[in-house]
Amino acid sequence: MKPLATVILAAGQGTRMRSDLHKVLHPLAGKPMLMHLLDTVETLDAERRVVVVGKGREQLEAALASHPLTLAVQEEQKGTGHAVAQAAEALAGFDGTVLVLYGDTPCIEAATLQAMRSRLDEADQPGIVVLAFSPDDPAAYGRVILGEGDTIARMVEYKDASAEERAVRLCNSGMMALSAADLFRWLGMVGNDNAAGEYYLPDIVMVAAAEGRHSVAVECEAWQTAGINSRSELALVERDWQQRRRTRAMAEGATLLDPGTVWFSADTVIGRDVLVEPSVFFGPGVTVADGAVVRAFSHLEGANVGAGAEVGPYARLRPGAELGERSKVGNFVEIKKAKLGARAKANHLSYIGDAEVGAGANIGAGTITCNYDGFFKYRTRIGEGAFIGSNSSLVAPVNVGPGAIVGAGSVVTRDVDGDALGVTRAEQKQLSGWAARFRERQSAKKGS
Amino acid sequence: MKPLATVILAAGQGTRMRSDLHKVLHPLAGKPMLMHLLDTVETLDAERRVVVVGKGREQLEAALASHPLTLAVQEEQKGTGHAVAQAAEALAGFDGTVLVLYGDTPCIEAATLQAMRSRLDEADQPGIVVLAFSPDDPAAYGRVILGEGDTIARMVEYKDASAEERAVRLCNSGMMALSAADLFRWLGMVGNDNAAGEYYLPDIVMVAAAEGRHSVAVECEAWQTAGINSRSELALVERDWQQRRRTRAMAEGATLLDPGTVWFSADTVIGRDVLVEPSVFFGPGVTVADGAVVRAFSHLEGANVGAGAEVGPYARLRPGAELGERSKVGNFVEIKKAKLGARAKANHLSYIGDAEVGAGANIGAGTITCNYDGFFKYRTRIGEGAFIGSNSSLVAPVNVGPGAIVGAGSVVTRDVDGDALGVTRAEQKQLSGWAARFRERQSAKKGS
Amino acid sequence: MKPLATVILAAGQGTRMRSDLHKVLHPLAGKPMLMHLLDTVETLDAERRVVVVGKGREQLEAALASHPLTLAVQEEQKGTGHAVAQAAEALAGFDGTVLVLYGDTPCIEAATLQAMRSRLDEADQPGIVVLAFSPDDPAAYGRVILGEGDTIARMVEYKDASAEERAVRLCNSGMMALSAADLFRWLGMVGNDNAAGEYYLPDIVMVAAAEGRHSVAVECEAWQTAGINSRSELALVERDWQQRRRTRAMAEGATLLDPGTVWFSADTVIGRDVLVEPSVFFGPGVTVADGAVVRAFSHLEGANVGAGAEVGPYARLRPGAELGERSKVGNFVEIKKAKLGARAKANHLSYIGDAEVGAGANIGAGTITCNYDGFFKYRTRIGEGAFIGSNSSLVAPVNVGPGAIVGAGSVVTRDVDGDALGVTRAEQKQLSGWAARFRERQSAKKGS
Repeated sequence: MKPLATVILAAGQGTRMRSDLHKVLHPLAGKPMLMHLLDTVETLDAERRVVVVGKGREQLEAALASHPLTLAVQEEQKGTGHAVAQAAEALAGFDGTVLVLYGDTPCIEAATLQAMRSRLDEADQPGIVVLAFSPDDPAAYGRVILGEGDTIARMVEYKDASAEERAVRLCNSGMMALSAADLFRWLGMVGNDNAAGEYYLPDIVMVAAAEGRHSVAVECEAWQTAGINSRSELALVERDWQQRRRTRAMAEGATLLDPGTVWFSADTVIGRDVLVEPSVFFGPGVTVADGAVVRAFSHLEGANVGAGAEVGPYARLRPGAELGERSKVGNFVEIKKAKLGARAKANHLSYIGDAEVGAGANIGAGTITCNYDGFFKYRTRIGEGAFIGSNSSLVAPVNVGPGAIVGAGSVVTRDVDGDALGVTRAEQKQLSGWAARFRERQSAKKGS
Repeated sequence: MKPLATVILAAGQGTRMRSDLHKVLHPLAGKPMLMHLLDTVETLDAERRVVVVGKGREQLEAALASHPLTLAVQEEQKGTGHAVAQAAEALAGFDGTVLVLYGDTPCIEAATLQAMRSRLDEADQPGIVVLAFSPDDPAAYGRVILGEGDTIARMVEYKDASAEERAVRLCNSGMMALSAADLFRWLGMVGNDNAAGEYYLPDIVMVAAAEGRHSVAVECEAWQTAGINSRSELALVERDWQQRRRTRAMAEGATLLDPGTVWFSADTVIGRDVLVEPSVFFGPGVTVADGAVVRAFSHLEGANVGAGAEVGPYARLRPGAELGERSKVGNFVEIKKAKLGARAKANHLSYIGDAEVGAGANIGAGTITCNYDGFFKYRTRIGEGAFIGSNSSLVAPVNVGPGAIVGAGSVVTRDVDGDALGVTRAEQKQLSGWAARFRERQSAKKGS
Repeated sequence: MKPLATVILAAGQGTRMRSDLHKVLHPLAGKPMLMHLLDTVETLDAERRVVVVGKGREQLEAALASHPLTLAVQEEQKGTGHAVAQAAEALAGFDGTVLVLYGDTPCIEAATLQAMRSRLDEADQPGIVVLAFSPDDPAAYGRVILGEGDTIARMVEYKDASAEERAVRLCNSGMMALSAADLFRWLGMVGNDNAAGEYYLPDIVMVAAAEGRHSVAVECEAWQTAGINSRSELALVERDWQQRRRTRAMAEGATLLDPGTVWFSADTVIGRDVLVEPSVFFGPGVTVADGAVVRAFSHLEGANVGAGAEVGPYARLRPGAELGERSKVGNFVEIKKAKLGARAKANHLSYIGDAEVGAGANIGAGTITCNYDGFFKYRTRIGEGAFIGSNSSLVAPVNVGPGAIVGAGSVVTRDVDGDALGVTRAEQKQLSGWAARFRERQSAKKGS
């Protein structure tokens, strides 16, 4: 195939989002929608990548700082044709295929884009490959009227369409592929003689036809072309994305008890025979190995769950949580930047942060690693097979040796040797009858 | 417009609810359905308000004690016409428009009721304004057959309707507007010559016609007229209410990652660029300021969340929780009648009740304010920039001064001065080899 | 009715489940799908019960070890007719009606099976009673073409069906009833002259017709015949099961605020005027008595909730949790093998395991029963009206007497007498200015 350049339009104002965040940076499946598009484009080995930016471009500059691409600026909003034209400088000297994409249309798949490229190279040498789709309800989309085969007879805006044309379900997605040379020549020939005084990209299909070059349509599923202009539309695209992801997880051998309540991120990895109970949230960066169980109301981000491990209900795994094989993290337990060895357990009401927990260790209910002094973070090391009594505080930096026991309620500030008992404990005192007298006194007060 | 009186029928038995609670007191969006109606009516400045009650009226008397309205009692269930007639005494001497409403139809909007009033006052002087709706599935509702314009030719019960009449989708909601004088005169002319021996309110349309007075229809969206007779119907009305509320939140600039799992109350206020993760419950009385984040599995009631604050996941905010700007309440933390200053943090496993926490203070994991002695509640005051070590118990009433530090695991019963360290701590002891010997002994027992 | 035998086919490989667990052991509503079927069959008093097993039969042998039934082995997968034929030995000498069922079709109801038995016994003596259903989308199911009344004219595979036959919505579920003698004689006459070389059970309808015996159809709702071949299908059947269960709960007088987020198990029992907030998970073995409230994000398994009790939000009730009347278990509290007396409270951040809590006792926030020493479990007994201060650790075995008070932050290792105060507490010390100096030092380090 010919070399490729991509032009992504991201200059729209996105006012309907009612947000200070740039529209194309709103996340879908935990990843900014523009990044979905860039990751897809990444797989196509494009030679040049251009993003056309406008208002709010500082946010895009910051977000894209580390990406190998060129930003082109559209200072004024004069239509999609005008926007694409701003990429001319960035594509100077480029002789190949250009794909025009949209920053607010993040679900397009690489295979579709490859199909567009391939179609452009076929023997009939089409001038433009237009990406089309057939929505259930075509509503007010511009229609694509085919002639013979996949040749486009004409494209017509909904408002200009006849009843017969409106009956056609094939619609124009706006995405297209064509040669760089054609693109910029034709853009120069597009006028702005319309109500809005804007230059419309689809008009190049007419311009091409006037030069005797035909355009063709490649069709993909409607969900690939879904654009996002409001938070409600974002929520709908997100819902459909999640539904596809859940179906895939089940097809690959995970059981989702109530699929509609499991939330995935773009990069979630789920093994075979994993059981996921209702209401589980997988934030970015989570891997769950085969045979693990993630119980209800668990919230995972940046975590690896080992084979056969059990998580939750109500487990919070934060970035850096590494759970060994058959380890257990139970209810109301938070794990952050901590590694649990195989078969280690933290079953109840604990906070384990900046820690290493050896294989088979047992962290009692209410254990807290005191990892922060208001300025710095410190590490806690708990050896293999150690047993931390309930309600203990481990004041880091501190080590509890292998096989050691920490007595319930202890505040451990110095290391505990392996196989030793470490404990802080005041003597237990009893004041007989004190409670009865207290109740009497307080009752009297309350009564008075 | 003419002066207004409202008559709300709430005498139905509600047996299909299978509940000891009166049907119209079952909550919708956290507020009894009758209160939705009363709040809507409140905006219309009605001169007189009547609620017709029957069985279970003690519950309504209690619930409405502080409301400026008259209860009229329907002792026997003799039909809707009979029920409205019980309001005659309460409306004695009233010369204006009466709106007849239903306690189990809580979604009606003020604008619709105003449209009914206005229509009654128009030049053609209709006798009755009937509120009609066009459901997707008209099922067995009574049909409204129009003549010219909005004039009602006749109303017909489904069972008496011809096939042609059943094909009409416009249905009678039962709500109507008419003058008080007409209402009671016509009610007196309605008979009960039917299978149930009841007096039906809609029959007054025929009675009016016999007097030469025409009725007209005002139409509203079907959801405004949805009646509730069972818990399943309540759940459906609730679902639709929630869906409308979620759409509004998104239109106003909040991101709901998974809108279908966010639960709002009638009075929830959500700012712009607020992010709400899946599975969040907003009980009554919650305000969330701009830019705040409410993470998954959070449960809020009677709480104010300041601008840019972060809540959850798994945060429980109870009535009286006041979160300052950019403060944080993290996982497994409960806040009750407590104020957190700007940038204050309580990130893990804590209970903060009856407390004031100064700006920038850091509440360590596992901190508990011991605010209750079984009889009285006491307050805890934590100064600006104070640092409470993990697993501490603050036995109220107690003050921790600004900039003070409380050592991990302390039980603080006396005030800690500003910038001081307060700590209770027994000496840490170590018994070498104790854990190894203990394991040996217990293993032997277990084996034996 | 004639005596009954049931043959359940469970020899399918279930490869589309992508699971190491046998397909028919995957749970539906918390109970293996095969057990749903066995429990339904149990109510029919079958004389003999056969399950035909194949690959992975070790798992079924283990799961069915305690069930009064015979396993018949199908060594090779040669079709459903061949599978049923493997039951011949187990049914030797049995003279009655055989019901052929499928282990992956768990929703069939007893009343439907009884209707099939009855129909077989009617005067016209049908040879076979076929269970049919009319799905919304008949898709590629085999069609049942009726003759007069419920007589089956013919059954036709979708691929062999004419357009007219495909327009028929009545489909063959595969389940049937017939006499044992007929069954095995006709099975012997079925051939395998088809593409797959398999023996198909439905072919016996033709064989019977050739003997002059007619077959009839009994129809049931489509959901009763839903088969499960993949995790996605399992999720759909589960969703529909849950929906029916939620509707029943509401009809019986429970309020489910957001029914779609409440998860039931097959044996959940919910009383009248119970309120269930959104996102509640009822695992196996839960009973909730009248008037109880189960708040959002609660997770219950093997628990009894007494009348008027309040649970959650975020309450975790594990097997053996017994909550007395009007008791309360609040947020981030786990109860396991523990009994709470009437009006007892554990409202915040506690773990109560292997314990008895007396009526009216108050368990403070952060209380933990230390019930495990790494080898054995021990019990904690808390008397009536006792008050356990916050952040206490009760090291079992231990007793706190009636009316006793335990001071906040105590580690209780010896019994506390009734009406006494028990406490462990080190002296509170203050180091003036220490915090200020600490901050200065750490700030300097951080700056350096």
